[in-house]
Amino acid sequence: MDTNGQHLVIDAFDCQKEILNNAAELEVMLTKAIKQLGMEILSSHFHSFTPQGVTGVIGISTSHISIHTWPEHGYAALDLYTCGNQDIWPALEEILTKMQAKRTAVFELNRGDESHTKPIMRKLNLSSN
Amino acid sequence: MDTNGQHLVIDAFDCQKEILNNAAELEVMLTKAIKQLGMEILSSHFHSFTPQGVTGVIGISTSHISIHTWPEHGYAALDLYTCGNQDIWPALEEILTKMQAKRTAVFELNRGDESHTKPIMRKLNLSSN
Repeated sequence: MDTNGQHLVIDAFDCQKEILNNAAELEVMLTKAIKQLGMEILSSHFHSFTPQGVTGVIGISTSHISIHTWPEHGYAALDLYTCGNQDIWPALEEILTKMQAKRTAVFELNRGDESHTKPIMRKLNLSSN
Repeated sequence: MDTNGQHLVIDAFDCQKEILNNAAELEVMLTKAIKQLGMEILSSHFHSFTPQGVTGVIGISTSHISIHTWPEHGYAALDLYTCGNQDIWPALEEILTKMQAKRTAVFELNRGDESHTKPIMRKLNLSSN
């Protein structure tokens, strides 16, 4: 296996606050996305903060997916890094749609390829926007 | 707490292969870095692949740190995302030095600030390089 990986870095703004504060629902959403992508889950840990906020990290056989939320600001930071080649954007877009994100900043980093002097950055937009 | 976060994205090349394949040692190194930075660990999971390779994700109260290694290529992908303000580079540089990384690509993403049309990218170099 070579070292090339794709890493989607997503900042999601103005999301539905109750969803961002529901650790169980977020874990179901991310787990579903991982399974849709045919990836194997190695570990999964979601933590709810007091008075609000969730942090979740899932180790997968091809790297990791993570989410950190600030319900009071309607903000979520979502990352999926995988050394697989499949199109991971549809599964992530589904998560963003469920979180009712109004605005997103989505960037793709190409990891593990030394020929790149900097990560390739590709701006993606929600189909519904 | 505001949503601003710093995310260091590190690709480390030509590292010492035995270290990259030692899940226990990598967990000790990353845990030490987290404690040096005064961060609280919420979860930690490291997995060794057959025949080689390690994936490790640590959830912290201010987001996460992760490492994925390809010992056969001397390559490691290291991420630290935190909503704290402290200088996280020295602790990460110590990890890279221990992994004996010969070359690195280090980029900093500013997360959670919608005024940025794209992440701020700051190239950092190992002091020893």
